[in-house]
Amino acid sequence: MSYNIRLLISCPDKKGLIAAISAFITMHDGNILSADQYVSEEGSKRFFMRLEIEGEGFGLERDEFGAAFAPLARRHGMDWSISYTDTPKKMAILVSRYDHCLIDLLWRWDAEELDAEIPLVVSNHPELAPRVEVYGIPFHYLPVTKETRAGQEAKVLDFLSECEVDFVVLARYMRILGPEFVHAYPDRILNIHHSFLPAFVGVDPYRRAHDRGVKTIGATAHYVTEDLDAGPIIHQDVAHITHRDTVEDLIRLGREVERRVLARAVRWHLEDRVLVDGNRTVVFE
Amino acid sequence: MSYNIRLLISCPDKKGLIAAISAFITMHDGNILSADQYVSEEGSKRFFMRLEIEGEGFGLERDEFGAAFAPLARRHGMDWSISYTDTPKKMAILVSRYDHCLIDLLWRWDAEELDAEIPLVVSNHPELAPRVEVYGIPFHYLPVTKETRAGQEAKVLDFLSECEVDFVVLARYMRILGPEFVHAYPDRILNIHHSFLPAFVGVDPYRRAHDRGVKTIGATAHYVTEDLDAGPIIHQDVAHITHRDTVEDLIRLGREVERRVLARAVRWHLEDRVLVDGNRTVVFE
Amino acid sequence: MSYNIRLLISCPDKKGLIAAISAFITMHDGNILSADQYVSEEGSKRFFMRLEIEGEGFGLERDEFGAAFAPLARRHGMDWSISYTDTPKKMAILVSRYDHCLIDLLWRWDAEELDAEIPLVVSNHPELAPRVEVYGIPFHYLPVTKETRAGQEAKVLDFLSECEVDFVVLARYMRILGPEFVHAYPDRILNIHHSFLPAFVGVDPYRRAHDRGVKTIGATAHYVTEDLDAGPIIHQDVAHITHRDTVEDLIRLGREVERRVLARAVRWHLEDRVLVDGNRTVVFE
Amino acid sequence: MSYNIRLLISCPDKKGLIAAISAFITMHDGNILSADQYVSEEGSKRFFMRLEIEGEGFGLERDEFGAAFAPLARRHGMDWSISYTDTPKKMAILVSRYDHCLIDLLWRWDAEELDAEIPLVVSNHPELAPRVEVYGIPFHYLPVTKETRAGQEAKVLDFLSECEVDFVVLARYMRILGPEFVHAYPDRILNIHHSFLPAFVGVDPYRRAHDRGVKTIGATAHYVTEDLDAGPIIHQDVAHITHRDTVEDLIRLGREVERRVLARAVRWHLEDRVLVDGNRTVVFE
Repeated sequence: MSYNIRLLISCPDKKGLIAAISAFITMHDGNILSADQYVSEEGSKRFFMRLEIEGEGFGLERDEFGAAFAPLARRHGMDWSISYTDTPKKMAILVSRYDHCLIDLLWRWDAEELDAEIPLVVSNHPELAPRVEVYGIPFHYLPVTKETRAGQEAKVLDFLSECEVDFVVLARYMRILGPEFVHAYPDRILNIHHSFLPAFVGVDPYRRAHDRGVKTIGATAHYVTEDLDAGPIIHQDVAHITHRDTVEDLIRLGREVERRVLARAVRWHLEDRVLVDGNRTVVFE
Repeated sequence: MSYNIRLLISCPDKKGLIAAISAFITMHDGNILSADQYVSEEGSKRFFMRLEIEGEGFGLERDEFGAAFAPLARRHGMDWSISYTDTPKKMAILVSRYDHCLIDLLWRWDAEELDAEIPLVVSNHPELAPRVEVYGIPFHYLPVTKETRAGQEAKVLDFLSECEVDFVVLARYMRILGPEFVHAYPDRILNIHHSFLPAFVGVDPYRRAHDRGVKTIGATAHYVTEDLDAGPIIHQDVAHITHRDTVEDLIRLGREVERRVLARAVRWHLEDRVLVDGNRTVVFE
Repeated sequence: MSYNIRLLISCPDKKGLIAAISAFITMHDGNILSADQYVSEEGSKRFFMRLEIEGEGFGLERDEFGAAFAPLARRHGMDWSISYTDTPKKMAILVSRYDHCLIDLLWRWDAEELDAEIPLVVSNHPELAPRVEVYGIPFHYLPVTKETRAGQEAKVLDFLSECEVDFVVLARYMRILGPEFVHAYPDRILNIHHSFLPAFVGVDPYRRAHDRGVKTIGATAHYVTEDLDAGPIIHQDVAHITHRDTVEDLIRLGREVERRVLARAVRWHLEDRVLVDGNRTVVFE
Repeated sequence: MSYNIRLLISCPDKKGLIAAISAFITMHDGNILSADQYVSEEGSKRFFMRLEIEGEGFGLERDEFGAAFAPLARRHGMDWSISYTDTPKKMAILVSRYDHCLIDLLWRWDAEELDAEIPLVVSNHPELAPRVEVYGIPFHYLPVTKETRAGQEAKVLDFLSECEVDFVVLARYMRILGPEFVHAYPDRILNIHHSFLPAFVGVDPYRRAHDRGVKTIGATAHYVTEDLDAGPIIHQDVAHITHRDTVEDLIRLGREVERRVLARAVRWHLEDRVLVDGNRTVVFE
């Protein structure tokens, strides 16, 4: 089966990086299908690159790549990662009671829009089990209260670990995760916030948007960091509203934006298009 | 010359208001060209209506309307206003150094997109005089410092009063207006804020948007109240950005959104489409 | 249970229509919750109105309204219809193999975004049965070929008639309907065309959009008339694409636009917001 | 003064192109600031690349580059071009009577959004002279009729040639250009068509859009080829409309889309971001 190799690199910028990297690939008979590159303008300039290489004909086996690339990576102080498109990422979904983002992700996955495995869905409520199981995906109900959070999160982490999950999607999971959980998957927990961040950080954004009389509502997909709603933003979009729209209308219209924004962020993450640059993201669309 | 009459009404909601109002118009041989109506859902329900009536054939002269309508208005506790499309509103523009909103308004006015008179443009900087005067519009240079604000604003108010200005547009006027000024034109000073309010209230929003790593920037047209950037929002729109966009790019892309959003808000205000409902607006598009 | 009454009217324009209609409602103690009105500018001017009246307290019973309203309707040559929000419309969905519009409609219906009954889904392919039946909705598989079309359509019409269906949604039903079918539900068959009509009328629009090198693709929801893809347009929207997007990407991105556009059109139809004006629609949003 | 070098390349795809090109740049001490690359998926695959290289420190003088790059270019069958950001392109604008695109381009140029020289504006009508001359740009009035077209176009070409114009922008120039003119500037004449091509090819698109009852109007910026309205599309965008919008409203709303779409296409062209791939464009945003 034909497959591609994706190489993500970030390091301090200097002359000759593209030449050095592409020479390395070419030396090993790699065919570069696409190359994206960016140098951040801020402070100490940082170089970011995403390469997609044809798997067939590439001269380095999976277990050889690391050793072969290490000298180059070391010399330039590179953070790097590699992935192979014939090994889909394993994605866990955490959800509470709202199902719109969940159903949308499952439908897209089923329609082969999302190249992932979904070994499990976890929820702190039992209601959505049938909607998940109809897709043949295991559903775990792990209730939680303020008092039991640490224990529940430890259990969730055990499940994720057992399933060798690569990243986690919070599809309107209505609980704040503790720092242990967040640190277990750095830059690998995606959340959808139901406002156009940084407007309406925190709870009940649609109510507050309505009270403020805004004419546009939005949604924000971001990586989760310890500081709630402050992690690196991956994608945002908005919908126009009018004075006729009630809070309920905002919630309904917001659902459409939320699911679209989250699905796009998940897809980009799956395709290794998102690199984190401090509190910002580089997205190679 | 054919003209229309626009009647704006707001009052506590009750049964029979549309029937009473339209019966009044019909009784005086008025032809209703368009009728928009809305009842706010919040707390004590309030009724809003905009009527556009054919001028020709309407049975009440301009100096007769008030007396004839008064009993109905009094009985229902109506706030109301009337305007005639053959008497364009008088609009003053205040500007500092950035000219993009100003030029766009002048161009649209010249292209007859904005049915207004512009008796004057006032600036606290002299540079834009030629760009205004080429359109045959008087330009007044009234410099201001922190210390001289009260005096300068009094002078501006004198000019506006002399010109019998109906409303004021702040086309990126980079000074905060004092309460006397704001109260002189309640719900009749339009401002363009260069962010998607309530995100990035205050100064330098593009820099802060860039630092936060947002993926969308916006602009907000609103009526000016004493509380800076907190007045009723008339219109908002956004532009998508990427990690490649620098602060300068945000400023450039923002200009396009700002001028589009402000122009639309001004147009709606000129066409009597905006009613204020507490801290919200009703916009009959 | 509280409910509303919706009254749709169209007739030749003349003075006093709003007054006459609202006086009639008020005379019967009706409370008008919202009123939308429009006079088409083309040729012989035509008046369109949509009224939403509070059910409680309205003085005319359902079986009395027609007789009471008839004299007014006759005098002004009105086309009119009335609906009650406690009696949801019955909607049939026709589908072939693509399920994105179908699933989206079912999900929204389940989430109570669409106030309808769905007594049946009909398909010329058997595959989607489980996805429909999980929602508790009967699925009818009625295969069709060029030769058997007349017979199959007659059977479908029988089913629709038995279920007392009010209108039909073609959710990517990939067959052209014969004139008998179209005439059975005039202005009551909604179709989603996967292009921005009138660009790319006919088959395989995404392939043709790609070949033409367009930078935007679209979708169009319209009422079905005998002349394929030429019926009155209800809603359209687009998505931006780039040179990187293959035909497969266009199909994927298009799915998102299609389902959003169709869902909105269906919602508007369900809320009696769409009136047909020759080959155009009046949409009271 | 700091400046950058932009190198555009297209050639048949093969392994090692990026490595070869970047090695060449690095060998000559070039610092690659940004690299964009794309391989068309259609038929015989074609490789496209845009490099932006820091001018300072690059080892090849302007008159040396061609000879140094020739062997590599020849070996891979490259079409290539180079530009230096300290030598702005020379852009001519052709216009008739509508001034919205013209004024917008001039304003953006004046605001330094467009890095170009504008040695002349040519029109077949005299009216817009003052609006151009206020920016210090020569205005040439060259009237034309069906009979005199060949002669007039020859004169325009003479002017363009004298001014050493690099490319031509038709800012709502309402005449069809003859083949001699088109061939004089291959892929270097930009036109704005006031519809969402390929819908409403030809004259009076807003009238036809209105008659068809579409709910969205658009504009298309494209390179001019002999076949009218069929050249490679650079950018498209749309605006939503409603049944209330008359043909005049469409024209007004369309102006806003037209000027935005054209300005963006001109900017991309100026920044060497657009490569032509048969009847399609590759746009490295």
